[in-house]
Amino acid sequence: MTTMSILQQYRLKYRPHLPPILNHLTDLKPVYEPYSSIAPNTLKPLFPETWGQQAISFAKGDAAPHNPLKVGVVLSGGQAPGGHNVITGLYDALQRLNPNSRLIGFCDGPGGIVQNKAIDITGDLLKGYRNQGGFDIIGSGRTKIETPDQFTAALKAVSERDLDALVIIGGDDSNTNAAFLAEYFKKNRSKTRVIGVPKTIDGDLRNEFIEISFGFDTACKTYSEMIGNIARDALSAKKYYYFIKLMGRSASHIALECALQTHPNMVLIGEEIDQEKKTLQDVTRDIVELIVNRAAKGKNYGVILIPEGIIEFIPEFKQLIAELNVLMSPDQPHQQKIDSMDDAAARAGYIEKLLSKEAVHCFNGLPLEIKSQLLLDRDPHGNVQVSKVESERLFMETVKKELEALAKAGKYKGKFSAQPCFYGYEGRSALPSNFDSNYCYALGHTAALLADAGANGYVCYVRNLSKPVEEWTVGGVPLTGMLYPEERQGKSKPVIKKALVDLTGRPYFQLKAAAPSWADNDDYCYPGPIQFAGPPDLADTSPIILKDLKD
Amino acid sequence: MTTMSILQQYRLKYRPHLPPILNHLTDLKPVYEPYSSIAPNTLKPLFPETWGQQAISFAKGDAAPHNPLKVGVVLSGGQAPGGHNVITGLYDALQRLNPNSRLIGFCDGPGGIVQNKAIDITGDLLKGYRNQGGFDIIGSGRTKIETPDQFTAALKAVSERDLDALVIIGGDDSNTNAAFLAEYFKKNRSKTRVIGVPKTIDGDLRNEFIEISFGFDTACKTYSEMIGNIARDALSAKKYYYFIKLMGRSASHIALECALQTHPNMVLIGEEIDQEKKTLQDVTRDIVELIVNRAAKGKNYGVILIPEGIIEFIPEFKQLIAELNVLMSPDQPHQQKIDSMDDAAARAGYIEKLLSKEAVHCFNGLPLEIKSQLLLDRDPHGNVQVSKVESERLFMETVKKELEALAKAGKYKGKFSAQPCFYGYEGRSALPSNFDSNYCYALGHTAALLADAGANGYVCYVRNLSKPVEEWTVGGVPLTGMLYPEERQGKSKPVIKKALVDLTGRPYFQLKAAAPSWADNDDYCYPGPIQFAGPPDLADTSPIILKDLKD
Repeated sequence: MTTMSILQQYRLKYRPHLPPILNHLTDLKPVYEPYSSIAPNTLKPLFPETWGQQAISFAKGDAAPHNPLKVGVVLSGGQAPGGHNVITGLYDALQRLNPNSRLIGFCDGPGGIVQNKAIDITGDLLKGYRNQGGFDIIGSGRTKIETPDQFTAALKAVSERDLDALVIIGGDDSNTNAAFLAEYFKKNRSKTRVIGVPKTIDGDLRNEFIEISFGFDTACKTYSEMIGNIARDALSAKKYYYFIKLMGRSASHIALECALQTHPNMVLIGEEIDQEKKTLQDVTRDIVELIVNRAAKGKNYGVILIPEGIIEFIPEFKQLIAELNVLMSPDQPHQQKIDSMDDAAARAGYIEKLLSKEAVHCFNGLPLEIKSQLLLDRDPHGNVQVSKVESERLFMETVKKELEALAKAGKYKGKFSAQPCFYGYEGRSALPSNFDSNYCYALGHTAALLADAGANGYVCYVRNLSKPVEEWTVGGVPLTGMLYPEERQGKSKPVIKKALVDLTGRPYFQLKAAAPSWADNDDYCYPGPIQFAGPPDLADTSPIILKDLKD
Repeated sequence: MTTMSILQQYRLKYRPHLPPILNHLTDLKPVYEPYSSIAPNTLKPLFPETWGQQAISFAKGDAAPHNPLKVGVVLSGGQAPGGHNVITGLYDALQRLNPNSRLIGFCDGPGGIVQNKAIDITGDLLKGYRNQGGFDIIGSGRTKIETPDQFTAALKAVSERDLDALVIIGGDDSNTNAAFLAEYFKKNRSKTRVIGVPKTIDGDLRNEFIEISFGFDTACKTYSEMIGNIARDALSAKKYYYFIKLMGRSASHIALECALQTHPNMVLIGEEIDQEKKTLQDVTRDIVELIVNRAAKGKNYGVILIPEGIIEFIPEFKQLIAELNVLMSPDQPHQQKIDSMDDAAARAGYIEKLLSKEAVHCFNGLPLEIKSQLLLDRDPHGNVQVSKVESERLFMETVKKELEALAKAGKYKGKFSAQPCFYGYEGRSALPSNFDSNYCYALGHTAALLADAGANGYVCYVRNLSKPVEEWTVGGVPLTGMLYPEERQGKSKPVIKKALVDLTGRPYFQLKAAAPSWADNDDYCYPGPIQFAGPPDLADTSPIILKDLKD
């Protein structure tokens, strides 16, 4: 048994604020509306049952009885603060609609559906999880329901459990999966409707219909607390450059939001590097330029933010990875040869001879340690594990080398001492902010309403999130409407596209306008730890990047 | 200019709570009391002017006029949350005692005294720093005032500035230095009195007179927030072992406090490892045992806390370091030879032949990367930089190796995947907790009172810290009374001893009593982010390890 901290106990008592419409829960009627699907019609044949549905919102109607529902819920993929509140919101709303409704939770992710492993979610159980972090009430997992056998098993599970609806809390992949399950269940005459809930701290599940996924707010605030603390320490000691890597998969939303919250001296934005086709050396030189300029002002300290997925945006790096994946595949003799070598330099020398000229250029710019990571840390399919490349250390090394060369040439007289940081796991299971607590509780309610309305193949939305809760609106949009064909392993597959940072959007412009001053001066902002009590401008704020939506 | 976050702005308005006695500031009179010095009389000849002074507390007397004072203040060493509040407390108290008093701040640490570089500290300047983190108002530094020239320069600076008192905010070394400066100034007929303030997040400046140094509370709460978040993530994903290194120099106070706050599966306590004379292999096996036992219960995740100074407590490691320091000293040819080698394995092989049997045993147990750190990352004196050894990665590697061997022997069937974390710089400049804000503000007031009372060579104290502020008491004890002769580089030097974790103390017993359950079960506690508003049991708590003092 875990012991509850004082703050956890106080948070248990927090009552999430609901958008006004949800106060009339039992009197609401669904309103069907046309909306602008972004999915091309070429995908239609894949979804004969669920294509072309209308969007759903809710309006106050007459009080009417609601049938008891049996609903299953599952947490899919990486943790995000607020997951427990989606479940409590779902439970509370189902109970309000009809006290005989039941909620069950599939254990440890979609694998729990396939294996039909579930527990009853009761009010008693939920007592310990209200407004709490983590996904531990039922666990999460990364199993994908992909094979025909898995689909059959999932159908069997929801049928045996006699579920009216299945709520899938997940990211882009899980919601794509939800679209296919919805189609499959309907095709097989199952009564189980599938409803998705947009989750991911990465912020890349974001489109015309979803303003932001839940968890992003708390994760960014947690990282920004740390970044602010580090920046103040840098300014106080005037000794170190901090190279701070931030979680967030491929897109740079987290880095952008954290930068807007903390005003570091520099932030790398993957999407910008991609657009400008920068090489590793270009990026290194950008950082070096900053450091040299600051040194000329007597400043040998600073803070640089690096998104986790940065190297995947560097074209020459992408090519290097692609070549390595081919060279080191199990049908080639090279991995075995390399594994037999004791010496990192020899291993690097061996592979170097096999790479294209462009890839060699990139490879040779890497420190030996990173070369080793690329040659040794491989996933079960033999692919390079890009997320394991410690890019914060990579840039520390390349920058150091470049600065040493400049120092020799008399062009740099500063002192360079650097510290690597990585913030990621710290933010995924944190106590959800008031924003995420409220948002998730509303998402849970919305999922219940959609289930009650018989909606199948929908994702919940809560909108107007940059405004106070009193102005939030809720509803659902068809999952098929946000699909897009994407090339994956040579095949075209419909997926929900990962949203990248919009280089024409207001948050990015805001960043670029401030960047020159942030680089030269110490404009650091210190957000401090998330506060749960206090005036709304302190305790109830939403992410800064949301401000470009409605203001 | 930095931009103030909303929370920073709210914190500016916070009014620290003062111990009741300090509300009568202008009416207080010093009370001199005997106390039990822990310094041996052999040190007396070093301090003819300041030896044998009495302790000072304050009692309510008659209102009397106070002379204006001119006081200098300096921040020395690593940042600790609350430093700015010592300065605001000092300033406010000096102003209350006599509005014509003045405060100046020496810039960037004790080096600022030697160079006589200072700024005026005014009410206007302080407006932006009340209850804020960092040391950036005047900066800090690690220069030690040691040489005769430095002593002369310091005397010249305080004399030219016509200072009545010099307040040194620092750790054990800086307060030892303060004792010597006090003696030196008095011997040279300077009117400048020297007063120390106990600062360090490490918690090792702690003795019969000082319950805890400031900053420890905020730093531990900040680290515990992160550790709790990580633990909840571990429990949710059930995938990783987190090896978390915590700052705190040699002593394990921070690790102990954070463990009591978060209940990790395991915490290494350096003092215990030292007492039990454990080898690197012993410690590795302790961790492996935990992992194997948990795997047997189907648990392949967990949280292990590792104090920064851990390896200095492992006797064989200490010997290895000592031998390396001799071998690699500038008068030996080995460093040069090693630097000329391209290959890490060759470098390790070279030095191996020169080590004693015991040191080789330890050296060979290390991963190649750590070996390289020991051979390459050296300070300007050629010494191994122990604090740079990434012990969290060291143990990840040694544990992995041992588990692989057990798996081969069929004795371990778990899955081991580990993540390294390091929390340090994040906690040093954080927004001070209410505890540290109040404590530091009271320390600043106490320093002003001691300066006003003409005390020289004293350290400020605030006691009863585990109780509400209303029960806190304040005063000063002579710095010479807490000195102790210590061997440093073959010479006996009087120093303030670093306090280690007391293996007979209540906090350690508390830890040991809980440890078996923490190891097997998931008793994690999630403290969450520091809250500044709310009921006292949430917002005004003091460190857990303080509880053994008075309860």
